[in-house]
Amino acid sequence: MSEFMETAVVLAERKLIERIRRLAQTTGHRGVVRGIGDDAAILQVAKNHQLLVTTDLCIEGVHFRREWHPARCVGHRCLTRGLSDVAAMGGEPVACFLSLGLPPKLPQRWVDDFLKGLVDLASQSGAALAGGDISYADKIMIDIVVTGQVPAKKAVLRSGARSGDRIFVTGELGGSAAVLKQLYAGTQVTPMKNNRHFYPVARLDAGVWLRQHGATAMIDLSDGLSVDLAHICAESHVHATVDAVRLPMAEAADLVLALHGGEDYELLFTVRGKAKLPSKIAGVQITEIGEIQPPANSRTRVRLRDLNGRVGPLKPAGWQHFSKTC
Amino acid sequence: MSEFMETAVVLAERKLIERIRRLAQTTGHRGVVRGIGDDAAILQVAKNHQLLVTTDLCIEGVHFRREWHPARCVGHRCLTRGLSDVAAMGGEPVACFLSLGLPPKLPQRWVDDFLKGLVDLASQSGAALAGGDISYADKIMIDIVVTGQVPAKKAVLRSGARSGDRIFVTGELGGSAAVLKQLYAGTQVTPMKNNRHFYPVARLDAGVWLRQHGATAMIDLSDGLSVDLAHICAESHVHATVDAVRLPMAEAADLVLALHGGEDYELLFTVRGKAKLPSKIAGVQITEIGEIQPPANSRTRVRLRDLNGRVGPLKPAGWQHFSKTC
Repeated sequence: MSEFMETAVVLAERKLIERIRRLAQTTGHRGVVRGIGDDAAILQVAKNHQLLVTTDLCIEGVHFRREWHPARCVGHRCLTRGLSDVAAMGGEPVACFLSLGLPPKLPQRWVDDFLKGLVDLASQSGAALAGGDISYADKIMIDIVVTGQVPAKKAVLRSGARSGDRIFVTGELGGSAAVLKQLYAGTQVTPMKNNRHFYPVARLDAGVWLRQHGATAMIDLSDGLSVDLAHICAESHVHATVDAVRLPMAEAADLVLALHGGEDYELLFTVRGKAKLPSKIAGVQITEIGEIQPPANSRTRVRLRDLNGRVGPLKPAGWQHFSKTC
Repeated sequence: MSEFMETAVVLAERKLIERIRRLAQTTGHRGVVRGIGDDAAILQVAKNHQLLVTTDLCIEGVHFRREWHPARCVGHRCLTRGLSDVAAMGGEPVACFLSLGLPPKLPQRWVDDFLKGLVDLASQSGAALAGGDISYADKIMIDIVVTGQVPAKKAVLRSGARSGDRIFVTGELGGSAAVLKQLYAGTQVTPMKNNRHFYPVARLDAGVWLRQHGATAMIDLSDGLSVDLAHICAESHVHATVDAVRLPMAEAADLVLALHGGEDYELLFTVRGKAKLPSKIAGVQITEIGEIQPPANSRTRVRLRDLNGRVGPLKPAGWQHFSKTC
C-alpha cells in the first residue's frame, strides 16, 4: 500500500493548487465570499437575482490541438465558451471553476501559459477564479464552469421566440471556421490577439443590453448558425427562414462556413417584429438575417432563402470538433 | 470541410443529451428554475442563503477502474464526492452538473448504467441534474459540479478551529481503503450497495446538524485523515494532536489505512472545548479523536499520539489515487 505513504504526488498537486490560488486572487468579484481553499466556494448572488451555471469541456485533440493552439490561447478559448453562454442569457459573470486533467509529462510551462490565458480573461470579464479540481489524465482535459447572475425572471431563454419575430446576429459569421480550414490545409496561421479563432470574445455587454431591451430569445453561436437556430426553433416551437444574402460573412469565410461553422461566439437573437434596434449594440454591429414563422408540418425547422431567392431546408450540420482527425 | 457537413456525430450527441434530459426530469429541486435545454441553468438561491459550488474530477484509471467498479457505482461515487463537499460546509444540495468525456467505442450500456447510478443518488439527495457537457475522450472522464445552499454567513469553513477545540469524526475510518487494498491484492470484492468503497454516503444530515449546533471547522475525509486534518490546521493557523487509540477503525482497516486511507467521506470537525455532543448525529456515530493546539515552531502541523502514548509528527501522506498503477 505504498500508494498511501508517498507524498511526492500530493505535494506536486498541492503546489499547483497553491499557484492557482495565488493567481486567482487577482480575479476578484464581490459575489465570491470564499474562493479556493475550502470544500466548496461560497457565492453571494445579488439581491433579486438568479444564478446562472454553465459547463464546457475542452479536450486535447477534440477542441484544440497543441500544435495549432498556444497554451495561452487554449486558456482564453475555454473560458470564452462559458462566458458566451452567460452572455446568451443576458447575464453578467460572477465566478469560474477550473477542472484540469494533465498528462504527467506535460511541461509546467504549458500549464503556466494556459493559466495566464485563463486568468487574464477571468480578470477582464469579472469572472473570479473560485475553485476547481486537478488530476492526472492521458491527454489534457479541461472542464470550465462559469457562474453568472441575472435579475430574477429576466434571463433571455431559447424558448421565447414567436411567429413574426425578426432574427439578428452580432458581428460576422464563419471567421473562426475559416481559420480552422486554413489550419487543416496546413497553412501557418499566426495566433494574433485580434483573431477570433484563437482569441474569441464573448458578447457580454451586448447580451446585457439585449436583455434590457426586449430580446425574445437568444443563444450564442458555438455550434454554428444552422444548429443553434434549430435549438431556438425547437425550444420555442416555431420555424424560421434565413436569408443567405443578408448573412454578415467574415473575411475569408464563405456561405457554408457562415451557415455551419462554429465557435464564432456571436449572439443569435430574436426581437418582436416592430422592435427598433440601433445598427450597433455595445460597439458591435448587428445584422437582421431572417424571420420566425409558425410551426409547420416539416421536420426541418429552419429554411434558407438562397442567393437565387429559392427557399429550401437548412439542415443542422454544425460543428464536428476535430473528431474526424484524432 | 466535411467536418461541418456530416450530421451523424452531432445527432448521436444530441440523442444522448435528450436521454439525459429525460432522466434529469426525475430529479427536481425547487431551486432549479431552468435545467437542461438552454445556454445555462438558472438557479434560485433561497432567501438569505448563499450558494456553494464544488467540482470533482473522476478519470478512468485514476479514480476508478472499469474492471473493479461497475458503471452504476462510478455514477454514484462521482456524485458522492461533490455531495460530501456540500455536507462539509453544512449545506444542502440544490443541483448537479455532469461533464462527460466518452471513448467512441464505449458500450451505451455502460453510459446508461452510469447515468442510473448518478440520477438515483441525485434524486435521493435533492441535487437536481441541471446541465453539463458531452465530448469524445480517449478514456472515460467525468467532471461533476454540485451546487448547494447554506444560510448566509453560516457555512462551516476549514478556518474556524481554535486552540482548545476538540476534534471529532463521523462513522469509521479506513473502510474504503481496506477494500481498495483487497482489490489491489487481486481479491474479488462484490460491489454491494452497503459497501462504502463502492457506494459511499455523503453525511449531509450530519453536516447540517453540525452547522446548526456550533461546529467550528469542518472538512470531509476524501484524501485521508492525515491530509484533511492538515488542511484544517493550515487554514485555521493551528496545530493538532490525534490519539491513535481513539480512532474508530472500520472492519478490515488497520491504523495506516485509518490515518491515510481516503474516500471514506466521513466528516472531520471541531467544536469548542466545552461543547456537549450526543453520541450519534443524524443516526451516525461520532468519535472524539484529538485536540486542537496553538501553532508551534514545527513544519508538521499534525501530531500522532501512538498506541504506546508517544507523540510524533503525522505527515500528510494521503490518497494517491491509482496513479502508480496506470
